[in-house]
Amino acid sequence: MRRQPMATGLTARTEMTPAQISPFAPAAYPQMPAIAGVRLATAEAGIKYQGRTDLLLVVFEPVAHVAGVFTGSRCAAAPVDWCRSVLAGGEAAALVVNSGNANAFTGMKGEAATRATAQAAAAAVGCRPETIFLASTGVIGEPLDPGPFAAHLAAMAGRAAADGFVDAARAIMTTDTYAKVATRTARIGGESVTINGIAKGSGMIAPDMATMLAFIFTDAAIAQAPLQSALTKAVRGSFNAITVDGDTSTSDTVLLFATGAAARRGAPQITRPGDAALRGFQAALDDLCRDLAQQVVKDGEGASKFVEINVSGAVSAASAKKIALSVANSPLVKTALAGEDANWGRVVMAIGKAGEPADRDRLSIRFGPHRVAFEGERDPDYSEAEVSRYMKAAEITIGIDLGLKGGRATVWTCDLTRDYVAINADYRS
Amino acid sequence: MRRQPMATGLTARTEMTPAQISPFAPAAYPQMPAIAGVRLATAEAGIKYQGRTDLLLVVFEPVAHVAGVFTGSRCAAAPVDWCRSVLAGGEAAALVVNSGNANAFTGMKGEAATRATAQAAAAAVGCRPETIFLASTGVIGEPLDPGPFAAHLAAMAGRAAADGFVDAARAIMTTDTYAKVATRTARIGGESVTINGIAKGSGMIAPDMATMLAFIFTDAAIAQAPLQSALTKAVRGSFNAITVDGDTSTSDTVLLFATGAAARRGAPQITRPGDAALRGFQAALDDLCRDLAQQVVKDGEGASKFVEINVSGAVSAASAKKIALSVANSPLVKTALAGEDANWGRVVMAIGKAGEPADRDRLSIRFGPHRVAFEGERDPDYSEAEVSRYMKAAEITIGIDLGLKGGRATVWTCDLTRDYVAINADYRS
Repeated sequence: MRRQPMATGLTARTEMTPAQISPFAPAAYPQMPAIAGVRLATAEAGIKYQGRTDLLLVVFEPVAHVAGVFTGSRCAAAPVDWCRSVLAGGEAAALVVNSGNANAFTGMKGEAATRATAQAAAAAVGCRPETIFLASTGVIGEPLDPGPFAAHLAAMAGRAAADGFVDAARAIMTTDTYAKVATRTARIGGESVTINGIAKGSGMIAPDMATMLAFIFTDAAIAQAPLQSALTKAVRGSFNAITVDGDTSTSDTVLLFATGAAARRGAPQITRPGDAALRGFQAALDDLCRDLAQQVVKDGEGASKFVEINVSGAVSAASAKKIALSVANSPLVKTALAGEDANWGRVVMAIGKAGEPADRDRLSIRFGPHRVAFEGERDPDYSEAEVSRYMKAAEITIGIDLGLKGGRATVWTCDLTRDYVAINADYRS
Repeated sequence: MRRQPMATGLTARTEMTPAQISPFAPAAYPQMPAIAGVRLATAEAGIKYQGRTDLLLVVFEPVAHVAGVFTGSRCAAAPVDWCRSVLAGGEAAALVVNSGNANAFTGMKGEAATRATAQAAAAAVGCRPETIFLASTGVIGEPLDPGPFAAHLAAMAGRAAADGFVDAARAIMTTDTYAKVATRTARIGGESVTINGIAKGSGMIAPDMATMLAFIFTDAAIAQAPLQSALTKAVRGSFNAITVDGDTSTSDTVLLFATGAAARRGAPQITRPGDAALRGFQAALDDLCRDLAQQVVKDGEGASKFVEINVSGAVSAASAKKIALSVANSPLVKTALAGEDANWGRVVMAIGKAGEPADRDRLSIRFGPHRVAFEGERDPDYSEAEVSRYMKAAEITIGIDLGLKGGRATVWTCDLTRDYVAINADYRS
């Protein structure tokens, strides 16, 4: 399967690659409902790209509770440092995101740029700078000039509207070939609440630092502690369960904003983590995050296959996840998938190198419904022809049963193609 | 730089790829001297390949002390299990290596095949099976039939000769594009001893399981404990400091055999690890292992660049090595190298994701002599033109100074090219 010539207005990748969109790009976007208390605006600030939006302002009225999960990188970008420090305040008046420049590895200048941007946004919205959240994605090591932002942000605060979610998702794209949005509803105490999310990322640090960013908005009335607990839980099985190439951006950021506007319609105020009233919300949030995360993997650079890896029978869930990621990140497994080769020997290799408890003689491996290896040997009953046919599908499942205990994990990844190398080697950033 | 059409008799790769040898293939092999007490023979056993040798027998007379280091895989191949169990005996009468079939993930059949092979070799050589060492490399999951080995091994024991090291290196090749040999001399107590080594591997599990195997032979008189200690030390800075793609074979094996024949010329018997008389031997062994390991990386599949990564200023040597390997294994760093792109942003990313102590604002990065990043920012003095010129070289050095403490490490790797994907995706194993 090869990427098709781009037929839409999504031109983010055209600068650096033959314009091709992912074969997994959605045919249509879902209807994104308004979220009471959330207004959005985008602008063309000309940071790097021409003829497309690259600046997003989201205003919360009056304010939102906020939860965040950030990159594990020891060399985090300046906006990540900023968000970490203001998150303690627990309240957000606005979110500002730019594409085209990551403001990463920019030293003292980078810190100054975040402060100046927060001040400009605070002046535009009428709030304290410590209630402004920031994210940047794009080239690394290039100083970000926040000078032009002030005028843009003032105008954007004025025209921000409730229906701009798809436009917002477009403004934060870098090497993405399509905008990523999702929406869900849930009930809290009998009252319906809405959750909208936008994300960007090709799951990796691409020529333009294809950082993974996701921003999620809800009108539910949830205090910061339960909000953070819900987000942390949702991220574990979604954004932290995907990999394109095992590389981690210096800027990865997931923020969840809760305006509380649903309380005016009678939705209860949730103040304790683990409140049983949050069960439906948690399930909807988990599902929305998984949807956005899978959209990121499906837009993985050069991807022609979407791959789910299910590990069971491990000694623990953590052990299962480590094994699943070892398989998902193995260049040899990923190139075999690109070649539509049911190469279970490479899966065995990747399980073995994970360093987690595994017993060769209890191991079984499946490609889709086809068991290819069983109890430490090739399954004598498997049909090479049937498995080869299965490997031609666009979506592949690899099942690994370690046969030890009950630990399970699922991760999602894509294949490693020549297009991946072409995109990342042939075009200078 | 592209691989040249193969002009030699090294046809191992021709089955699965357009026949091309590594641009780093040596122009000539060193003269490999005889090692007293070591005789070698090869044969065409037709295990998988036709028209080339695929079976190696090395006989030690009367016996050799032996040390070993094996794969860290939890799914090790049957011959690795065998070697681990007989290593406790400390003595080797012979080594048998086959290419074409890895005898990995072959369950009880695999165990039976190792026992049968050891028995056949023991009968041929006239020794106990527990003094036979084994290694296999090639396809995985395919039962290995040891039946034909008995007749071959009996004939080979008869014709084994002292001068067969390059032929031995050829017989153990799989996806290698050239045979890998090295020789050194050292003085122990005023007496000269010789160390010869052969290795195979493209640094990865290739279509044919390009396991890393290395066998080292010396006439020095060294007991097993100091021999094991010397090998473990040498492997740390050589075979365990190289990576092609971060994938680990189920069969990786390094064995060091010491016949002790030099004692007849007056060389002292070394019985204690850390004996000062071993200093010169250790240095020569370290150097030989580094040479063989670098040959493996230079034959990395699709490699067009040989890359040295030097990390200094880390909190410890272990931390430095973890960071160096994170950079060496990053697909984004490796594709940038293939594209001759001095993309230090990706180096920052790979340092950050290693999870080791690093302070963005103390970090400096060099490509060769060119400092591109300093104290958390792009170095304002660096010339993009000069660095771009440097990146066109076949051998590249990346220097990373963390500026924290005195921990250092060096690892070697190669770039990630479209040829790597082509070799691993387009050709069925």
